Formats: sequence, structure tokens, C-alpha cells
Amino acid sequence: MQGTQQTPPGATAAYARTDRTAPTRSADRASYDKELVHAILDEGYVCHLGFVRDGAPVVLPTLYGRVGERLYVHGSTGSRPLRAAGQSDPGLPVCLTVTHVDALVLARSGFHHSINYRSVVVHGIAHDVTDPEEKLRALDALVDHVVPGRSRDSRPADRKELAATAVVSLDLNEVSAKVRSGGVNDEPEDYALPHWAGLVPLRKGYESPVPDPRLAPGTELPGYLAGL
Amino acid sequence: MQGTQQTPPGATAAYARTDRTAPTRSADRASYDKELVHAILDEGYVCHLGFVRDGAPVVLPTLYGRVGERLYVHGSTGSRPLRAAGQSDPGLPVCLTVTHVDALVLARSGFHHSINYRSVVVHGIAHDVTDPEEKLRALDALVDHVVPGRSRDSRPADRKELAATAVVSLDLNEVSAKVRSGGVNDEPEDYALPHWAGLVPLRKGYESPVPDPRLAPGTELPGYLAGL
Repeated sequence: MQGTQQTPPGATAAYARTDRTAPTRSADRASYDKELVHAILDEGYVCHLGFVRDGAPVVLPTLYGRVGERLYVHGSTGSRPLRAAGQSDPGLPVCLTVTHVDALVLARSGFHHSINYRSVVVHGIAHDVTDPEEKLRALDALVDHVVPGRSRDSRPADRKELAATAVVSLDLNEVSAKVRSGGVNDEPEDYALPHWAGLVPLRKGYESPVPDPRLAPGTELPGYLAGL
Repeated sequence: MQGTQQTPPGATAAYARTDRTAPTRSADRASYDKELVHAILDEGYVCHLGFVRDGAPVVLPTLYGRVGERLYVHGSTGSRPLRAAGQSDPGLPVCLTVTHVDALVLARSGFHHSINYRSVVVHGIAHDVTDPEEKLRALDALVDHVVPGRSRDSRPADRKELAATAVVSLDLNEVSAKVRSGGVNDEPEDYALPHWAGLVPLRKGYESPVPDPRLAPGTELPGYLAGL
């Protein structure tokens, strides 16, 4: 996966808790563990990027990539949040959230219905990436986030594409994970009720790859896709 | 599914486009069709709710339900956004986004890598639901959103649970959908490249339900789950 890094000796393996990442409830579900945060981020395809425009919140789904403790988001240079990040000093305040739904939790009471999920919430300032080398690395990370290793098996961005693409970075500093797992929690007196209760796990994984009808002759399915 | 309603005669079947819901790019992917918006909303489990706290954006994953042209979100009365919605006049400006990832799109160039997705973005003001009847209907809608029909096969909320639960509503007025579907779009000169290109569809659906170990004797798997 992208961004795998050894924790340097002496470095902490957890993010510091802040007022914004301290849970107001279900504190047992909160975590600041870097490995857990990285795993949740690396498994996702789309993040939900929140920012403020004209005083009102905006939440947009977008692809992302990770290199170590830095996330990257990209888009057209004409896109509104990316323009705002480039024009703001010192950058654009954002909240980036990634969520996986693992199972439906059906309790005997409506009140205890829930889902099993894993989420990561990142608060911070998005900065325009202007260094050409970092921008190339970020674009590779975005492609490799879709399929690990894929950037080495596709044509890299050319000058025109680079100029048309804006990339912003967001450092993993103010970060928390939240996880609900396990079974049903019902009120003691509800266990005698005749309602079925339990989990309905969501199906995960991939269907068979569908080749583009215009593949160059002799192009085989690469190993990194056959193993998905 | 929840909230299925006939469009009344003479009513428009599309949301009005506003400055906030007008696309700045990929205009062909944008839609204001109510049926499409409802279908995307009804298929999701988690929305990403954005709001502004102390001038900064916050994006949290949360369950939701739909009754016609109104969405509901609930939480503990102690949760920060729900408290803010109750205390603000005329309510809390929010942006509620639901996204489905359908397939990975692997192009011959890094630049044209993408995903097939369907998303809905709702802008509006979240209002505290204070009417007891509407609150009960909203909680049923939240349960039925997890599994259609489930609210009739579980214990309804009692007085204590109702008091501990805050519900906010968000009307579907300023709404847009965005959909990317179909195959790979590569640059004309890239089709000769030897890189595999195509779609990797994500697996959808459910695994077998896992019964709670403490089911009351004789409790069978209900039909609405056997058919999932």
C-alpha cells in the first residue's frame, strides 16, 4: 500500500488528541493510533472533503492519495476548492473524512440499530503543491491509491496535464479514527423479545476486471489485477 | 424503499439549479433529477454531514433517513452539531453528501484514471425536529433506511430514548447528483500503448446474516433479510 513507513525511533505512534478530535460521546470508539488511521485511509477510494465557502459548508467526494503523513487531493485547476487553497494564505481550512461501512447492526430495539464502521477525520490546512517533484509524486500516489503499483504501468502526466491539474496537500496532524465493531448491544429487558437481531455484513471486494474494448493487441491482464 | 412518493401532477421532477449546485466542470455528469437523487440517497447507509464550527469545516459520517423530500439525521442530544442545530436560529447551515463508488477506472494514462461513482450533495439548513409525531416518523425512517420494513419488526423508542435522541431535518431543495459511468476515456494517441485498461467493478451486496447468539428461542430469520 501507499505511504508505508517505519515509525522513526523515538517517534510517537499516535496522533495527539486535540479539542477538535476529542470525542463528545462513544469515547471507546475513538482512536489516535497511526497504524489504524493509515489502514483506514489506504482502504478507501473516496474521501469527503469539507471546506467553507461564503460562510457555508461544502462537502465534496474526491479521490486522494497518501505519502507517509501527508495526504494529497487533486483536481482541475478550475475547481473551486483547489483554487481557494491556492489563493488563500496560509491555505484553505479543510476537514477530510473517510468512512467504511462494514455491517448493518439490527438490534431488538429501534434505538440500538447501528452500523459497524471505520472512519478517519482529518482537520487541517490544505496547501497548494507548487514543487514540481512533489506534484509528480503526489499524482503517482493518487494513481497508486486506486490500484497499488499502477503508476508504474501507465503513462505519466505530460506537461499539459500537469499544468491543468492542481494538487493540494494536507498533513496528518490533527487526526482521529472511530470504529464500531462487534455485535448487537440491546437493553437487558429486550433480549426476550421475538425480533431477529444480528449483523448483516456488507460484501467487499471486486468483480472480474472488464477490459476496455480497444486494448492494444496482446495486452494481458496484469498480475496486480489478477490478484485483487 | 423509504419515502417513495408519486410526483404530484404539475410538480416538477427536477430540483432547481442554483449557484451552489451548478457544476464548474464535467457538466455532463451533473443531474437535478429527483428520481435519480432519491435512488442514490436510498441506496446509501452513511452520509457525510458538513457544518462550520468556530469558522472551520467539520465533516462527520452519520446515518440518515428520507421521508419524501425531507432527510433526517439523528444523534445523542449531547452531540455537537445536533446541539448547534437546536440552538441556532434559523438552524444550522449544513452540506450533506452521499457517495457510492461503483468501479475503478484504469486508463492508459495516469491522468485519465478515475472511478465510476454516483453522489448527491444537499445544501440547506438543518432544523431541530421538535414535533413528537414527526420525531417518531423520522426515527422509523432512520431504522427503515438500514433495512426497509425493519421499524415494524423492532421495539419502538420509549420515552427515555426519545428524550436522549435529537433529530434534525434537512429539506431537499438545493440538491444535485453527479454520476460518472461507462468506460475508459483515453487520449487518442494513447490507445496504442501496451498498458491494460478497463474497469474493475466493486463488489456489492451482503454476506449471510449473522444471528446474535442471544436470540429468543424459535426466532427465525425474517423474510426481508432472507431476500437481501
